Amino acid sequence: MPPESPPKDLEPWQWPEEEWRRKVNHVRAGRSLRPERWPGGKRCAVALSFDSDHDTNELRDGGKSIGRMSWGQYGNRVGVPRILELLQRTQIPATFFVPAVTALLYPDEQRRVMAEGHEIGLHGWIHEVNSALTEKDERELHLRSFDTLTQITGVSPVGMRTPSWDFSPATLKIQREMGLLYDSSLMADNDPYELEEHGERTGIVELPVEWIRDDAVYFNMNRFAALRPYTAPTTVLDIFRREFDAAYEEGGLFLLTMHPHVIGYRSRMFILEELIRHMQALPDVWFATHRDVALHAKAQMPT
Amino acid sequence: MPPESPPKDLEPWQWPEEEWRRKVNHVRAGRSLRPERWPGGKRCAVALSFDSDHDTNELRDGGKSIGRMSWGQYGNRVGVPRILELLQRTQIPATFFVPAVTALLYPDEQRRVMAEGHEIGLHGWIHEVNSALTEKDERELHLRSFDTLTQITGVSPVGMRTPSWDFSPATLKIQREMGLLYDSSLMADNDPYELEEHGERTGIVELPVEWIRDDAVYFNMNRFAALRPYTAPTTVLDIFRREFDAAYEEGGLFLLTMHPHVIGYRSRMFILEELIRHMQALPDVWFATHRDVALHAKAQMPT
Amino acid sequence: MPPESPPKDLEPWQWPEEEWRRKVNHVRAGRSLRPERWPGGKRCAVALSFDSDHDTNELRDGGKSIGRMSWGQYGNRVGVPRILELLQRTQIPATFFVPAVTALLYPDEQRRVMAEGHEIGLHGWIHEVNSALTEKDERELHLRSFDTLTQITGVSPVGMRTPSWDFSPATLKIQREMGLLYDSSLMADNDPYELEEHGERTGIVELPVEWIRDDAVYFNMNRFAALRPYTAPTTVLDIFRREFDAAYEEGGLFLLTMHPHVIGYRSRMFILEELIRHMQALPDVWFATHRDVALHAKAQMPT
Amino acid sequence: MPPESPPKDLEPWQWPEEEWRRKVNHVRAGRSLRPERWPGGKRCAVALSFDSDHDTNELRDGGKSIGRMSWGQYGNRVGVPRILELLQRTQIPATFFVPAVTALLYPDEQRRVMAEGHEIGLHGWIHEVNSALTEKDERELHLRSFDTLTQITGVSPVGMRTPSWDFSPATLKIQREMGLLYDSSLMADNDPYELEEHGERTGIVELPVEWIRDDAVYFNMNRFAALRPYTAPTTVLDIFRREFDAAYEEGGLFLLTMHPHVIGYRSRMFILEELIRHMQALPDVWFATHRDVALHAKAQMPT
Repeated sequence: MPPESPPKDLEPWQWPEEEWRRKVNHVRAGRSLRPERWPGGKRCAVALSFDSDHDTNELRDGGKSIGRMSWGQYGNRVGVPRILELLQRTQIPATFFVPAVTALLYPDEQRRVMAEGHEIGLHGWIHEVNSALTEKDERELHLRSFDTLTQITGVSPVGMRTPSWDFSPATLKIQREMGLLYDSSLMADNDPYELEEHGERTGIVELPVEWIRDDAVYFNMNRFAALRPYTAPTTVLDIFRREFDAAYEEGGLFLLTMHPHVIGYRSRMFILEELIRHMQALPDVWFATHRDVALHAKAQMPT
Repeated sequence: MPPESPPKDLEPWQWPEEEWRRKVNHVRAGRSLRPERWPGGKRCAVALSFDSDHDTNELRDGGKSIGRMSWGQYGNRVGVPRILELLQRTQIPATFFVPAVTALLYPDEQRRVMAEGHEIGLHGWIHEVNSALTEKDERELHLRSFDTLTQITGVSPVGMRTPSWDFSPATLKIQREMGLLYDSSLMADNDPYELEEHGERTGIVELPVEWIRDDAVYFNMNRFAALRPYTAPTTVLDIFRREFDAAYEEGGLFLLTMHPHVIGYRSRMFILEELIRHMQALPDVWFATHRDVALHAKAQMPT
Repeated sequence: MPPESPPKDLEPWQWPEEEWRRKVNHVRAGRSLRPERWPGGKRCAVALSFDSDHDTNELRDGGKSIGRMSWGQYGNRVGVPRILELLQRTQIPATFFVPAVTALLYPDEQRRVMAEGHEIGLHGWIHEVNSALTEKDERELHLRSFDTLTQITGVSPVGMRTPSWDFSPATLKIQREMGLLYDSSLMADNDPYELEEHGERTGIVELPVEWIRDDAVYFNMNRFAALRPYTAPTTVLDIFRREFDAAYEEGGLFLLTMHPHVIGYRSRMFILEELIRHMQALPDVWFATHRDVALHAKAQMPT
Repeated sequence: MPPESPPKDLEPWQWPEEEWRRKVNHVRAGRSLRPERWPGGKRCAVALSFDSDHDTNELRDGGKSIGRMSWGQYGNRVGVPRILELLQRTQIPATFFVPAVTALLYPDEQRRVMAEGHEIGLHGWIHEVNSALTEKDERELHLRSFDTLTQITGVSPVGMRTPSWDFSPATLKIQREMGLLYDSSLMADNDPYELEEHGERTGIVELPVEWIRDDAVYFNMNRFAALRPYTAPTTVLDIFRREFDAAYEEGGLFLLTMHPHVIGYRSRMFILEELIRHMQALPDVWFATHRDVALHAKAQMPT
């Protein structure tokens, strides 16, 4: 592993070649893990995930806004039950990425999620910003979150989605120490790939996300940051459907990130419902948790 | 009530558990007050509200822009009359939340609103930011606004919508002191619920708002904040209609926040008009003021 | 005129009543000047305007971006000719508001605009921000601009649109000194009205603008301000058409602000073209310059 | 060439006339180079370009975000191959503007681009901001980039698109020293024109860009800058098609800027694909590299 050589007073256009090469190679997409065929001879894979941030978004920012905190509670009180009801009705397994503080606030929610056959993955302690932490603090929070989820759900998580997809320089190293099966925070491909660190294989499967396939990008509302839900819900459905259709065409993975406090509204649930109807109308789609997709992808790796 | 223990130099991810639990529990959604059935055996309830901010948005910011002040006057001069004419024609009662300064500038407007059978509720003194005030100042302004509205309209208001839905740590305490029937500023549910403070019942009904059901979110224009009216009016109609349709399906409440200086334009009034036509085509919709909805919700509370 | 009493260290919610009343009454909409009928017995009036900012937007900001300056040149090189060709073909008179620096850079453009029967109105010196100037400087620039336009076009302008609709505390006073017929920068109504200053009539006609009826709001692009042309051109056409349709219904004024460097593109000119086609399909629409609309409105004033 | 006379402490509205004239005339559109007819008697010209920024956007900003770096890798790993496959299938030549650092990171990509008949043009060293550099540094980076691209592709580039279309006061001077055939960063027209510097001809062809004809404007995502992909993909197709249709009508140039890490997604490639289908349905459209368009435009120049 190359030593860090931070050229503190150089502008990027003054960096020596080894500097930008080192940065580019720190964490990198390696071998593609798109299988020849998916389990059961299915044509493509669908992995739905829900990031159960609830109150932690506001707590992470200092917890001063009672309004935003009530919005967080909505995720637990209305969002998750609506989503679980739809998944139950359509018999689709999904993955919930849950900050440990969410799990401690709402342990019954997590137990119901598990009981209905879904997966729970790591999503930080309180939705903290990894890249603002020291490596030591980041490690401690991931480990504490791991213990908390294990204790509450009775099952050890095998995958991580970093909060806000904020992947620090230390994240991959810590994930390797923890022996995780997969990460789902990066976006170098549409289909699963193996993560490399400083040019060496890690054995960790990346299930890539994309802002395109995320409900919050289109619908978020932040009074102070000029963010508004400016995209038509029908347009969001159109985008998600096109992403799926092409994944189906290519035989790849369609991975969709949602949030109970974003998609779980009366005027938005139809997006997920119509998308599911569209996908289930096809005979050869494999619906799976992230873990099961990662396990199948990992089976493609040479040993 | 737990004592305040502000861990001033701790980051949120360093907080002890009691700290984030205390913040989460400060103001909380308690018991759901969605009734088994609405008055007259109706299937769902519709509560339309109009926040008559008029010139106070600009005054609150210092009152320097003559252009924005003329925009405020539009609310009184064109917006409210258009809205009242439509409500009159369709025979729908509504609630107007009015800052005291608006009421003092336009007392005739308020008297007409009352005379035509609508409700007037509290909306701060000059559209101030509650969370920037001391508890003492906030209390004084709410009480002064209460007296002003009572004097001008002849009726004491029973509900409050905080300006900008900005609910301070002191707001609920003051509302309890004032003996209000309801608040309409928070968003932990789609349907009415009872507010809890530090884990104890308050008897106050929350009629929840949502940025999704607010015209300003989609249409606001702020030259200096990169906010633009980027949503198609037809899309806004589509969103509001979906919100209503699902409320009707569930037998819940459809509450919509509008502003005379936002919706009251030639190219936007059709949204409200078509929405009303759509809702009135159904036989079993209960149109009511916020007060009447809150009274019915309150009747669901155990004593 | 009430003396200025700037309560410098008071927050707006602490202001005495006379303070916010003074601010609100400084410049105010007085009597409505919507006529019983428009000239020739027409049902409604249409006033199209084009703000020929060209290079001045960038010059006003310091003139450092060569890219934005080339965008400005587009207004003169492509935008105005396209617009003039369309107006010629459809025989519609319009008003061009022209900063004096634009007129000095492109005097031939202004002479062609006049020769084809359109009006040229004041639009500042270099698109300066009025509210950042002293009254003395603002006056000097308006007067210098008046002389410049008069000299280049051979006709004295009778109306002003303030740059960026930025109306300073001194603007109305200066307009009265200059004896202008009309202003077109404020937005307290959809239809013409008389401007009042500190409660007294001014005899000046306001032809109100609105961000809704402005092409730049939807299409502006500012790399550093997160502004992007996020509205579909077909949506902009829909909005403008709805504004016109309701004006026609009410017998009012439809006033539309455009910019040669915004509307004058291959993918946007259809908006104006289809709008004109739609309006000209009706027999009783009066197309007029701002001056002619203002003259007719002024005839409604009692003397 | 007029001497620089920076009136440092004057506001723009105080500048003497020679100051704003000097700024306006620094770089200017001269003679239009739209030909009477295009090669082979074609009616209009289509020039597609792809800016292969890949990882350089993030490196230029300091290279700290591993997430954004993975997004950059997507451009090489997925975006470019998808684009090349489509161009191959439809037999359309295009131009790729490539920062030198991208070329060094992915030399095979560049060699494949060349081998399949496309052009590679200059796009800075590491996507640096030209206007933040000294003239000396800017020159050195352009020359180094020229050498790098020549070495990797075996062909000397003849045109430049400045990174972010950021054209510094020195850029044109340096382009003249380098003897470039064309630039493609400015926007004073829809069709090719000759660049003038301080009023004198340069012989350099400008192939004008426009934010309207750029995929990133509509689809960019920047978590910290409130930029979101708020435009419907179907709207982007509509805009691009209207731009082309009018270019075809006028017999002009349709130039479109895209980015492999923006357009190269499953839900967006249909835009380019349907656009190509639409254009290829017409018999008399000339598809060409920027170089070939510039050569034909240059042939219109008087000597």
